[in-house]
This record gives sequence, C-alpha cells and structure tokens, in this order.
Amino acid sequence: MVTMSDVAKAAGVSRATASYALRGDPRIAPATTDRVLQAARALQYTTNLSARSLRSGRSGLIGVAIFELDFPYPSEMSAAISREVARHGLEAIVQETSNSKESEIAILQKVTSQLCDGTIFSPGKVSDEEIRDLSGGKPVVLLDDISPDPVFDSVATPCESGSEAAIRHLIEVGCRRILVVGASYDMLAEDRAAMSVSGRRLIGCLNAFENLGITPDPTQFLRPEQWQNGAARKLAHNVVDAGTPFDGVFCMTDSIALGFIRGLADRGIHVPQDAAVIGFDGINECDYYIPSLSTIATDMEDLARKAVGLLLDRIDGGDAPTRTLTADYRLVARESTRR
Amino acid sequence: MVTMSDVAKAAGVSRATASYALRGDPRIAPATTDRVLQAARALQYTTNLSARSLRSGRSGLIGVAIFELDFPYPSEMSAAISREVARHGLEAIVQETSNSKESEIAILQKVTSQLCDGTIFSPGKVSDEEIRDLSGGKPVVLLDDISPDPVFDSVATPCESGSEAAIRHLIEVGCRRILVVGASYDMLAEDRAAMSVSGRRLIGCLNAFENLGITPDPTQFLRPEQWQNGAARKLAHNVVDAGTPFDGVFCMTDSIALGFIRGLADRGIHVPQDAAVIGFDGINECDYYIPSLSTIATDMEDLARKAVGLLLDRIDGGDAPTRTLTADYRLVARESTRR
Repeated sequence: MVTMSDVAKAAGVSRATASYALRGDPRIAPATTDRVLQAARALQYTTNLSARSLRSGRSGLIGVAIFELDFPYPSEMSAAISREVARHGLEAIVQETSNSKESEIAILQKVTSQLCDGTIFSPGKVSDEEIRDLSGGKPVVLLDDISPDPVFDSVATPCESGSEAAIRHLIEVGCRRILVVGASYDMLAEDRAAMSVSGRRLIGCLNAFENLGITPDPTQFLRPEQWQNGAARKLAHNVVDAGTPFDGVFCMTDSIALGFIRGLADRGIHVPQDAAVIGFDGINECDYYIPSLSTIATDMEDLARKAVGLLLDRIDGGDAPTRTLTADYRLVARESTRR
Repeated sequence: MVTMSDVAKAAGVSRATASYALRGDPRIAPATTDRVLQAARALQYTTNLSARSLRSGRSGLIGVAIFELDFPYPSEMSAAISREVARHGLEAIVQETSNSKESEIAILQKVTSQLCDGTIFSPGKVSDEEIRDLSGGKPVVLLDDISPDPVFDSVATPCESGSEAAIRHLIEVGCRRILVVGASYDMLAEDRAAMSVSGRRLIGCLNAFENLGITPDPTQFLRPEQWQNGAARKLAHNVVDAGTPFDGVFCMTDSIALGFIRGLADRGIHVPQDAAVIGFDGINECDYYIPSLSTIATDMEDLARKAVGLLLDRIDGGDAPTRTLTADYRLVARESTRR
C-alpha cells in the first residue's frame, strides 16, 4: 500500500509538505503542489485518498454554485474550478443559482448540506447567517464576498488593483477623456455597495484617477441596465447619440466591452482608431474578437487553486481564522487599445 | 392541499394533460406545458411534487454531463437544460466529462447511480453497455448518440437538415466556391464516423450539393486540428497562404467560424466583402461579433425540453420503445453573409 511518505519521497519533499499539498493548502507553491499531485497520481495514491474519503463518510463531491452558466466568465470559472477539483482526485458538481434566492436556498439545503463535502459559492441573495444555517455545517468558500465582516473564507477577483491598472493603461496609450462603463459614480453612497464587485472596480478607477492627478467628472461613469452585451450595446448607442466626447473606455467586464464596441460599430465609431477600449475578466473570446480585446485577465487557475485550497483545508478540519485571498491578474494589451 | 385537478382546472386542461405536462411529456405542446407549469407554480403545487419525490425515494436531482464547460455551446446548452429542469421543480447538477473516459465513468458511477434520479449525458468515450452497467439502472438520455442501434432515448442536434440549410444559404447569397470547415471528405469511410456530429453535418452538406446539382471537390472539405477557435484561425492562415480560391465558408460550429473569420482578418481577407461565412450552433456571441455571424441556431430551449421530457417520462416509469428526437433549428442571417 502506497503511503504519504512514498508520495513525499517521490516528489522530493517532506511528508508534511506532501500532506499540505494534497490538501490543497495555498501556502504550498503551485509548482510544488503540482509535483506532489503528479507523484500521487503516478503511485495511484488518489485511490487511497478516495477510499479514505469513503471511510470518513465523505462523498468526494465538491459543489460549485455559480450565477449564470450561459455567460462566458462564470462558465469558464466553473470549468477552471472543476479542473482544480479533479486534480485532487475529487468530483465537482456545478449548479446555477440564476441569481434567485429560492435557487440559492435549494442548493445549500439539498446539495451542499446533503451531498457535498463542501461548496464554493458565489452568493447573490442569501445572507451569511442563512448560508451557515442551510449548509448544515459543511464548509463553504465564498467568491467575491461582500460581507464587511467575513464569516467564511473567500476568494476575491482583483477588482481594485485590476481596475486601477486598466485606467493607467488607457492613460499610457494616450487617452484623455475616459468613460467607465459598469457603475454610476453615486453608487458608492449606497449601503454595502462599496463591497460589491462593481463598487470595488469603481474604487479602483477612482484610485487611479487620484494617483494620476486627474479629477474625474461624475458623468464619465455610466451604468448599463444589466452587466450584459445587449444593455452595453444600447448604452453605446445612447452615448454616441448624445454627442458625449470620449477617446477611451474601461468596461467592468469583457462582455460589457464586447457589447459596447459592437454598439459603437453600429454608429460608425471604430475601435481602436476612434477610441481605445479595455475590458475585465480575460474570457477566451477576447483573443478572437475583431478587434481583439485588451483586458484585465483574472488568473482563473489561480482563483480556482486558492478557492479549492481554502475549502479542502476546512474539509480536513483546519480551524485557522477566516481568510480572504485575492486572485492574481495580468494586463493583456491587444488591438482594442493599440493606438 | 392543492391537487392535480386544481392545477388542471386553473390551466384549463384535462387532468391527464396536466399530469403529462408536469412530467414533461414531449407530446404536450410547449405552450400548454408552460400554462400548466405556471398554474402549478401559482398554486404552489411544486411543493407537493417535491414531497412526492421524497416519499418515493427520489432525490429531485437531474444530472447533466457535458464535455467542456468553458466553451460557449456546451455551457449555454447546460444552462438551458438547468432552466428546463428547474421549471419542473427539480434541481440540475452539471458535470464536465472533459472528454475523458475516466471522468465519464466516475460521473455515471458516483453521481448518476447514487445521487441523481436520471442523467442527460453527452457521451464521448464510454459504450452503451458501460453506461447501462455504471448508471445502476437509473434512466439516461443521450445527446447526439452515435450508436447505430440506440439503447437509450436521445436527442440529436439538427446536423443534416441544418448543414443542408447552411450550404443552400451560401449559394442563395451568390457563393460559388464554398469551403466546408470541420471534417475532411474521407472521414465517412471511417467506422461509425457517419453517425458522429461531424459526419452527420458533412452528410447534410453533401445532400445540399447533390440537390443543387453541384459536384463538390474533396479539397473543399477541411478539418481543423480541433473544433476550436485557435485551430480554425491557423487553418484560415494556411488556406489563404496556399492561395486556395473561395467566396463562401460553412463552419461546422460557431466557435470554428469565429476563429476562421479572425484568421482571415489576420491575412487581410474581410467578411462578408471577400467571402461569406456561416456557422452552426447559435451561441450568444454571434450577435455581438464584428461582423455579426450568420448561423444555423439549434433551438436550445427545444433541445432542453425534449431531453428533459424524455428523461422524466422514464423516471416516471414510462416503458415506450427507445426514442430519438431531433432539436429544431432556425437559420439566422446576419452581416457575415450579407452580400
């Protein structure tokens, strides 16, 4: 029978490191974790892991509850998390919350508490207390938690630093009249809105402007009716029809950016010739769009690694204080900001 | 307590029709099913449905096993099936098979046979016999089954009729030298390949050419290394670099079409001015691409309705002979074929 020590030896690490790596602890470097997982697979140690799971009353299933599966960002993120879960010899099951409280409750109550060893949850309508009650004590890791006083471990997308980088990039390529599409300026006055994804991306923009010595005007910040291509396209029509001057646009998601660029094209405004546009998320289609889309690409593998690592640590009984990690990002400059 | 008769009365249908509609029987017209489901919801009859499930030892969970969640077509289809399952007061759980036999076996063995009342399965590597053994007697409906002698109910995408319509559309807009991107001409000689999605789309093309009195040349049929944007983009480079003449292109998926158009743009070939391009699937981004993409749009709601209907019928003990249904489609003509 293959033991943890065999895996550690094959991977050239200590037994403790191997054990941490197999639990997906984020303190172990990704390259080391990979080496340990490869050794475990080569020695068929995962079989023992599964057997251990069964003995300990675990199902080996990890829940992934995500808002909308038919948009590129949530589906690519679910796929990245599924792959990371599989790397640990476990199975991911994905559920759509459809941003409905009813559906979020059903997932936590039926799937998380009864079937899964733990769940990675993108919360929309349920409170921390409800999550705790409904999940029946099973570990939960939140994505982009908006709680000011976090109860659960969570992984955040790099909203502030990414948005700041987007604005700096537009300035660097020569833009002087920048529109921000995704949130209106006054939303920060709303209760808890500053903790939301849109609020945090807005704060990143404001930080960038301040650091650059620019005083932005509230009319530069536009909110489409939904964070979707269709609404962004309509907004672009309105902006052009109103004669608003601009030479650069930061859209808070890639889907918004693609819809906005399409809306500009409908009115004869070309990107990047007439205006540079940058998005956020790093979805696959950015590279194939005409023009290819510059974006703040959230490192989805890193996000998946951190979320699964935090969850497995709790499943294995870890009782560290609540942790909030942020996924890495990189700025990918493509045709849409080539001026 | 609300009874089936109350629901039937509220929906203005017979008790039998209401019962069939609530089971998702495909023989009931979609509009009628909608009316019955609305009445059931308004009367909170779904609560009773769930209770009945629990009494009968059912979990109320439907599995959806799909190849790759991070491509638009499979993720949009999973979302459509999830919504349809929810319309019946049940929960869908989605799993990625990643086109790996290991993963397909794990899903059937752990999730389908142990947790779900039934599964909608997109088979890649497992045989009919393996599916039957691994699913532990739980009903399974296949998507695009390639078995020549079907053992399971299945729903197919409209490969033959859709591809035929695509070729006819290119001819109608004036194309005379058409490329087909997705499968090589000689694949039909391979064992069982004629039943695969690519084989069936190829057959649709050949039928169209024959009906139009055109004798196609084998060199018109091109197979990218994978059915993905990146491989299609590279193929477009090769086609242009080789000096191959063409004025129309049918790509067997939208993702292939978007990659191919991008590859043409890289070489200074513009769509639709220099060549018309049409895809297949009907993914959301077709409408926002520049140029917007003409496509054979599989009616995903229809596909979901048929697949869930067939499955619920089996779960409720239906013992009809094995059925194979085909999803509807519509041709959506957009900028990429506007000549």
